[in-house]
Amino acid sequence: MANRRDTSKDGLKNTFETYALTHLKPFWTWVQSSDSRQKLANKALINNAILKIPTRPYAFSTKSPYTSWESLTDRSYSGLHLPPSDWEPLTDEKHLGITLSPTEDFKRKLPAVENLQDLFRMGEQTKYSPKSNLIFPYFVQWFTDGFLRTDRTDPLKNVSNHHIDLCTVYGLHSAITEQLRSHEGGKLKSQIINGEEYPPFFYEESGEPKEEFSALPHLHTVREDPPRQARGGKERLFAMGVEVERANVSVGYVMLNVLCLREHNRLADLLADAYPHWDDDRLFQTARNAVIVEVMKIVVEDYINHITPYHFKFVTDPLAFTKEKWYRQNWMTVEFSLVYRWHSMLPNTLLHKGERMLMQDSMWNNDMIIDNGLGNIFEESSTQPAASLGLHNTPDFLLPVELAGVQLGRTVKLRSYNDYRELFKYPRATSFDQLSSDKTVVKELEKLYGHVDNLELYVGLYAEDLRRNSALPPMVGRLVGIDAFSQALTNPLLAENIFKQETFSPVGWEQIMSLHTLSDLLHRNVPSGKRYTVDFYRADRDRSHAGA
Amino acid sequence: MANRRDTSKDGLKNTFETYALTHLKPFWTWVQSSDSRQKLANKALINNAILKIPTRPYAFSTKSPYTSWESLTDRSYSGLHLPPSDWEPLTDEKHLGITLSPTEDFKRKLPAVENLQDLFRMGEQTKYSPKSNLIFPYFVQWFTDGFLRTDRTDPLKNVSNHHIDLCTVYGLHSAITEQLRSHEGGKLKSQIINGEEYPPFFYEESGEPKEEFSALPHLHTVREDPPRQARGGKERLFAMGVEVERANVSVGYVMLNVLCLREHNRLADLLADAYPHWDDDRLFQTARNAVIVEVMKIVVEDYINHITPYHFKFVTDPLAFTKEKWYRQNWMTVEFSLVYRWHSMLPNTLLHKGERMLMQDSMWNNDMIIDNGLGNIFEESSTQPAASLGLHNTPDFLLPVELAGVQLGRTVKLRSYNDYRELFKYPRATSFDQLSSDKTVVKELEKLYGHVDNLELYVGLYAEDLRRNSALPPMVGRLVGIDAFSQALTNPLLAENIFKQETFSPVGWEQIMSLHTLSDLLHRNVPSGKRYTVDFYRADRDRSHAGA
Repeated sequence: MANRRDTSKDGLKNTFETYALTHLKPFWTWVQSSDSRQKLANKALINNAILKIPTRPYAFSTKSPYTSWESLTDRSYSGLHLPPSDWEPLTDEKHLGITLSPTEDFKRKLPAVENLQDLFRMGEQTKYSPKSNLIFPYFVQWFTDGFLRTDRTDPLKNVSNHHIDLCTVYGLHSAITEQLRSHEGGKLKSQIINGEEYPPFFYEESGEPKEEFSALPHLHTVREDPPRQARGGKERLFAMGVEVERANVSVGYVMLNVLCLREHNRLADLLADAYPHWDDDRLFQTARNAVIVEVMKIVVEDYINHITPYHFKFVTDPLAFTKEKWYRQNWMTVEFSLVYRWHSMLPNTLLHKGERMLMQDSMWNNDMIIDNGLGNIFEESSTQPAASLGLHNTPDFLLPVELAGVQLGRTVKLRSYNDYRELFKYPRATSFDQLSSDKTVVKELEKLYGHVDNLELYVGLYAEDLRRNSALPPMVGRLVGIDAFSQALTNPLLAENIFKQETFSPVGWEQIMSLHTLSDLLHRNVPSGKRYTVDFYRADRDRSHAGA
Repeated sequence: MANRRDTSKDGLKNTFETYALTHLKPFWTWVQSSDSRQKLANKALINNAILKIPTRPYAFSTKSPYTSWESLTDRSYSGLHLPPSDWEPLTDEKHLGITLSPTEDFKRKLPAVENLQDLFRMGEQTKYSPKSNLIFPYFVQWFTDGFLRTDRTDPLKNVSNHHIDLCTVYGLHSAITEQLRSHEGGKLKSQIINGEEYPPFFYEESGEPKEEFSALPHLHTVREDPPRQARGGKERLFAMGVEVERANVSVGYVMLNVLCLREHNRLADLLADAYPHWDDDRLFQTARNAVIVEVMKIVVEDYINHITPYHFKFVTDPLAFTKEKWYRQNWMTVEFSLVYRWHSMLPNTLLHKGERMLMQDSMWNNDMIIDNGLGNIFEESSTQPAASLGLHNTPDFLLPVELAGVQLGRTVKLRSYNDYRELFKYPRATSFDQLSSDKTVVKELEKLYGHVDNLELYVGLYAEDLRRNSALPPMVGRLVGIDAFSQALTNPLLAENIFKQETFSPVGWEQIMSLHTLSDLLHRNVPSGKRYTVDFYRADRDRSHAGA
């Protein structure tokens, strides 16, 4: 008999919700057969996802274990969903309606971080995702790097703009944006290689950074740290919106940035044709706004619908939410950052041009794209599986990154996994086998933490079994639903006075409205004619999104 | 027969609303006789005030005459309620539901700014306010200077934090805050003179700025510009939260800053007694948060209830609004800044120690406070009338400031007064005598602008007659209601997860809850025993707030 997870602490309401959304297919087909019913259900389900917890603003950030004017306003500190473990309550009031547990034991009994390495380390064989292909973790890394940006010099702080603004493409701030623009026809600087468009290279052939990119941070570690040697030489690193080393870190990251750059310049040409009296700045700004919204449409209609195991498919209907209580100023939280560390979804090796190569060798390796063309590398990534999200599945070269995630949670003094379970409307767990059906994992956790009350968030998140037919375990999925929906749909470009033809121009609006998937975006921007297979699903997988 | 204003374009709904709120006294008494009815009415009336126009976010700022990512996110540019006059629509869609008029004529026919001077210049005699005493314009100047902060080097930009954060007391940014703190017992630096507490002086006796205040901007014009000579010598200028010259600009400004400093240090002592294990930082932050909320209570319960001519009195009930559609990120607008320029409320002269002195001589004159004590100067200001808000009532020394207001509206390309009338739900005016009953004003406006469609916002705002029994003319009152309520009640300290005992401590909470008026605040902070007359009403005026 296979190992079973103890489901007694899943929560009745949670079980019912999941059942309803992953079964009753005829009902969901009926719901989606009418536009108005679909929009109604879309609104209800998104609100239900977000309103699982109290809404922003929160009383605490990483600034201080009590509320200060800075903890309420200075977003260079990261947000916190719960007060830190060194917070001392002054009253008997519940906090956010939940009964937080004492933290003395929890803090004292945490195992040494280095002892957790084996918990994450991949076994002899990569466990592959039952659902997703490699494009999925590529997209996740690139997309989240735009707004989850822990400050590498101070883990309490962040350098995020707290919006989906495609800063990886357009620059973290305006001084960078200026240098990435060609200042002609609204375009971003680019170069043509093998007949395809790419960002300019960052370094001179001499190896020095180009003067024209002086505002772009670069860490020089690519040169100085031998294991991080850029494949193909650092002169192949592109100048993009964020730190040079980061912007070129993986083949997937670069693929998506290149795709957006091409879309931007294509739109700028279209707008220039339609509105010949517009100046460079107006062309640039309007194209940029359109690309941001296009990516947001892909996130909702392609990416999120891939994540969920539901029969219902979400649609882009931002104006439905203009009155919601959760529609508050964005503030990226530490918890959101931790819940989006899906290193274990990268397999140890990948297939490239029919040969197996180490995943590590796809870092700083832009020749993989340049030599094959963007369409081919997208198709190649889309037709091989991602690894599965969870413990015992992280390749060795990413283990330090996992431990850094654990350490971040401790540095900012996150409360226990069980406190977060209560916040996210799960009953507190009373034993480890309520998280995982894997007896080895359960035994290891017992040995490391003693009691489930002492488990820390980062480990608990990834110790949970995947939900059936989902790319994610339950609590990861729940927090992604809360923070992603409530901070994406608040994008000012989706607001009611702004999300309309007038803002994007009739030509830009038509481009936005006719796009729904990553495949749509790719096929607008590869040499014409050829069709590529591009989505988030394993090729051998039913694409119906349906429950089993 | 007295001059009459043509009321045909007041709007039926507006007339009805005003009538209902300024009459039917028995009804309003009944409403306020129950706590729940009062809260319900409070919520309904505030929502009704704010929802007169579409809610934030807006598509335009002073950044560009089209929507750009910066115009949506960079709050160092000022917000705009309507697109600027050089905006070219791309579609037939209405903007914010209104039909904006063409702007060619409007822009072409504006009179030269210098020709408007006589329109503002005070006549032979100051017209006194029928309702307000001098504390009222003092409070307004001080209070609004905390969040309406046009950048003096670039009128398109602002240096506002976009929140009521008492930056005039605590500093515009954290480097200033650090220097104003004593870093002992949570207190602000202070000195005792004549047995009363004041901020420290900014200058050394040598005339050089003190090194300890190096982060505080100072303009040196007090020394260099003879008409702006500091009375009593510049060594009497205090170090406060904003530019030294600005922070000391008028006696009223300094009175209110001194009062808040005393309250802060008083609260820090109370908290230190109650929570002896707290460090300096926690004492400081908690006292600061409490003072901000206390001022907000005074704004709602004392100041706003003075402004309105209603029988109903507003109460501080911020948690009633946590679900409102208008609860969006703050963004101070140019229009809000213009609507709060009440220079004409300062009379040409004031009574000080029984003698008449020029208002101009109360600028940079801290000895007026130091020599008399804070209680006496508050009472003296509270027992003499303010001037009346409107044209032909600005003292000569403030005329350049009025013309700067006109010029600001033109620099940022505001649309016409009539476009704003439509936005604010008034029928467009068809003649000047629908604004003013003053035949001289009507004739002057006809001569300057030709047609009411060519009138600009700044002049139109102050050309309107005062509403009966109100301190303000109608459109000023309406815009103040919109922007003030919708940007004060969004203060994070008033949010549902934060506005509670836990945040402010039981001791701080009790201090906040037991305060309602400016008088309450003053009497906590003057040498004990003596009672002073302090409110916003003319001494000879019925304080019932009632309509005639």
